[in-house]
Amino acid sequence: MKENPNLPPQENQLVFLPLGGSNEIGMNLNAYGFGPANARKWIVVDCGVTFASEEHISGVDIILPDPAFLESVKDDILGIVLTHAHEDHIGAIGHLWPRLGAPLYATAFTAELIKDKLKEHALDAKVQLNIVPLKAAFELGPFAIEYITITHSIAEPNGLKITTPLGVVFHTGDWKIDPNPLIGEVTDVAAITRMGEAGVLAMVCDSTNVFVKGESGSEAGVREELIKQVAGIRGKIAIACFASNVARVSSAVEAATLAGRKVCLLGRSMVRVAGAARKIGLFEGVDFVEPEKASRYSDDEMLYLCTGSQGEPRAALARIASGSHPHLSLGLRDTVLFSSREIPGNEREIYDLINRLIMRGAKVITSHDAPIHVSGHPCRDELVQMYGWVRPKIAIPTHGERRHLIEHAKLAQELQIEHGIVPRNGDMVLIAPNGPAIIDEVPNGRLYVDGNAILSQDAETISERHRIAENGFIIVSLSIDVKGKIVAGPDVRSRGIAEKNGKALDKSLETLADLAQEAVMNLKAKQRLDEEYCEDKIMRSVRKAAFNMFKKKPMVEVFVMTV
Amino acid sequence: MKENPNLPPQENQLVFLPLGGSNEIGMNLNAYGFGPANARKWIVVDCGVTFASEEHISGVDIILPDPAFLESVKDDILGIVLTHAHEDHIGAIGHLWPRLGAPLYATAFTAELIKDKLKEHALDAKVQLNIVPLKAAFELGPFAIEYITITHSIAEPNGLKITTPLGVVFHTGDWKIDPNPLIGEVTDVAAITRMGEAGVLAMVCDSTNVFVKGESGSEAGVREELIKQVAGIRGKIAIACFASNVARVSSAVEAATLAGRKVCLLGRSMVRVAGAARKIGLFEGVDFVEPEKASRYSDDEMLYLCTGSQGEPRAALARIASGSHPHLSLGLRDTVLFSSREIPGNEREIYDLINRLIMRGAKVITSHDAPIHVSGHPCRDELVQMYGWVRPKIAIPTHGERRHLIEHAKLAQELQIEHGIVPRNGDMVLIAPNGPAIIDEVPNGRLYVDGNAILSQDAETISERHRIAENGFIIVSLSIDVKGKIVAGPDVRSRGIAEKNGKALDKSLETLADLAQEAVMNLKAKQRLDEEYCEDKIMRSVRKAAFNMFKKKPMVEVFVMTV
Repeated sequence: MKENPNLPPQENQLVFLPLGGSNEIGMNLNAYGFGPANARKWIVVDCGVTFASEEHISGVDIILPDPAFLESVKDDILGIVLTHAHEDHIGAIGHLWPRLGAPLYATAFTAELIKDKLKEHALDAKVQLNIVPLKAAFELGPFAIEYITITHSIAEPNGLKITTPLGVVFHTGDWKIDPNPLIGEVTDVAAITRMGEAGVLAMVCDSTNVFVKGESGSEAGVREELIKQVAGIRGKIAIACFASNVARVSSAVEAATLAGRKVCLLGRSMVRVAGAARKIGLFEGVDFVEPEKASRYSDDEMLYLCTGSQGEPRAALARIASGSHPHLSLGLRDTVLFSSREIPGNEREIYDLINRLIMRGAKVITSHDAPIHVSGHPCRDELVQMYGWVRPKIAIPTHGERRHLIEHAKLAQELQIEHGIVPRNGDMVLIAPNGPAIIDEVPNGRLYVDGNAILSQDAETISERHRIAENGFIIVSLSIDVKGKIVAGPDVRSRGIAEKNGKALDKSLETLADLAQEAVMNLKAKQRLDEEYCEDKIMRSVRKAAFNMFKKKPMVEVFVMTV
Repeated sequence: MKENPNLPPQENQLVFLPLGGSNEIGMNLNAYGFGPANARKWIVVDCGVTFASEEHISGVDIILPDPAFLESVKDDILGIVLTHAHEDHIGAIGHLWPRLGAPLYATAFTAELIKDKLKEHALDAKVQLNIVPLKAAFELGPFAIEYITITHSIAEPNGLKITTPLGVVFHTGDWKIDPNPLIGEVTDVAAITRMGEAGVLAMVCDSTNVFVKGESGSEAGVREELIKQVAGIRGKIAIACFASNVARVSSAVEAATLAGRKVCLLGRSMVRVAGAARKIGLFEGVDFVEPEKASRYSDDEMLYLCTGSQGEPRAALARIASGSHPHLSLGLRDTVLFSSREIPGNEREIYDLINRLIMRGAKVITSHDAPIHVSGHPCRDELVQMYGWVRPKIAIPTHGERRHLIEHAKLAQELQIEHGIVPRNGDMVLIAPNGPAIIDEVPNGRLYVDGNAILSQDAETISERHRIAENGFIIVSLSIDVKGKIVAGPDVRSRGIAEKNGKALDKSLETLADLAQEAVMNLKAKQRLDEEYCEDKIMRSVRKAAFNMFKKKPMVEVFVMTV
């Protein structure tokens, strides 16, 4: 799609551009543009990652949204505004900031966790990180930003009221309606209602739980249940939850204290988030036991808070399950509580983890067994409530897969919201009072963090690795003298190739060496000295034979060296 | 564990040996042994596969249970008895029969599908396939086998009453209690109750749905709902379900017929199973439309039954979703019904598929939206009912992950079943009136079907491939003359290695070539002529440098050729 030719380019426009989060839950990267089409000013909202474990891309742990378009307007980016500290909202800052280069805005807790990332990428001296108070209001060029307090599964979650000369957009961020979030304030319904009454042009809103009926429930309910559960358990207790859910961590601490247990944090992100929480005044008076000192207490005196609820192979809980954790082993008398949900795509890993814990003899309690988890995202009834408060002219679902976004748009329509539009990542949405329109599509996609490189999602590197992973590798090497005579080799080796039933692989490789030699013999002396030509002939011959031998298509690499 | 020394080896024993299905749902391979410990006779019950897609093992599609132990007692196997035709019960026959070599026993529908497998593996002339009637009774040495009609999600499902001189074992197979299964008879409660009253020593029982409360529901309910749904839909309709669920396929046909639609089968297994069903007299009078002729009918006149409900990439539905199916394209006016469930581990693939269908504009209805699917396995209340009928002395949960088996054993205990035992694959369970015991552990594990080879699960092939898939491959080749002088190369190439941010890969490979050369120069002339030694030195040097360059650990292969 191209710019709408009916709109004069000199007229001011307000546009919304999702670059992540509008084909998936997470990996949020949004931009708002204001100005004439040829001279827009931009703000970026959130800059997050997604995790490759869910997609099984070989060798890749972290996936970033492709910021190519924003890079191309780098000089017109006025600021990067962060709603909260979840990885899918701030995780890409360290990787992508050099391409965006604008000042950051975040509240204190979020800023603490961003600082770690900047340090990790040696950016702390370069980046202007503005720490703003809760309910902050500030201006970035034509955009007046106001932080609106909402509730979510982390400390200091915020929506953003973005006021422009053409109207107000409410960017909800990740939210739920928790009447008792335990940490932080409740949803600022007064501010939201006031904004709604004054008129909201568009709401860009979380779609995660649109298929879930009812309400998400309160952290207070989880605290009550955790207290009950922990009080009734003898032996060691391990609770797995997301470290960033400070309310949840605090509930576990409360449950432990009431049961006369000390708390020990296991896992790097537990320690890191607890540190950030302390800096904003949380966990005052709480003494966590160092992992190496936990063994001084009896089993009934300890409660361990662990990372790894999603079955992540290197997290604390996975190491406990495999018996390789240096500070905690669990057995017959012990209990693991999963105060978490199964993120779709992780089920296999989570069930494997549970099976391993059960094989060690531990009892496992999940949110299927007891109400020890609530989601941080709005279920259907909460969405209905939010639309009632805000009454936007335009509904723009975000933070969801296609099926979530479409269902969310349907719901908004049922709620008599005048306009709805469901952009994909890269769609530039014109936000106009007479209705939204997609007026352009900009480059978009995913980037893979691979070692110290960042690859585009269609990089040959990835497809090569997948081909080898499925089919194995055969390498042929030989030396030819200036007369075209083979003077060493062909030497044929393989990796990732299976022995045929009973038949030794060595024998198959010898056959391939014979074929390689034959392929050379079939060439004229002059052709043999053309290394590339000769390599290609050998490669074709070996590839064909390998397929017949193994019924697989290994990658074949041939070295012909003229000496 | 070793043989129990308290039991004289000459005494007859009855043992149960699961080799698959007792650490996972599916991949069933069970054996029963009778006789003195040193001269047991065996029967094998079921011989199934599991699918590697759930485990993401590179290049492997099918996983088999390791039959090494049964191979070692091959001459004493009296028969392989199949309960029903699901792949996780018969899928390994073609691969493993040569190692087991005993006659097969199956009912007509199951036998039809086994015949295909035998043909595929060119075994049809070698294998004795005995087709037995429903409710058949026959003897295999000390084992008297009786087929007991149960209900499940396939035609001709059976449990097995196995009578031995030491007592009766009821091997349930996969079952549920469907009061109206549509195809085939209802559960033979009379036979089961009679068996229970006469005394059952042990029940080896399906654990799949032990965590699901209530009952699984009936195929008749699904038919009713499918009729209702199909009647209300305009445009093309595609229904995804398992081909082997003949009742479900027949319900879809019924729904189509009532709505004035013709039915077309898309996907190889749809066609294969329908063929087998016709051979036992089902689908009489039903005319399926050939895929290439379906376009002669209007959208409102067609209903397509498709394979691929689990998001399998090569199945019909995936091809429809990607717009590459030769005979069916779906768009804005069309509807896809998923008459299926999400098998744990497949969620990501299924949701991706649904998103792609929605992106094409199609409406998607799943079992979350309407009751268009029921499970084929017993939920908790059905398990309770079965234990009430059979009242075995010993409960032996099978067909489940560890967490299912443990939960099932707890349930049996709650139901006052005297003994329970939860074996792992490979555990030999003594079934004795005074209680069961694990008396031995035999080799067990998984085999991977890789092209035309069968690999053990710890084969180096697989770990090599995974290493390359995650880290890429670097190959160094050089020629050295008899004086130890490098006369060609080092030539360094890579596969699956990413370019560093901005820096060209070629340049990095040149650096590695320089390092390889340096590594050779550091050797004495004599050392250079020891190819293996020289290769090792170069490999170490390149590996270290590559890690520093890429922060990855590529596999490095070095060829030194002396010319």
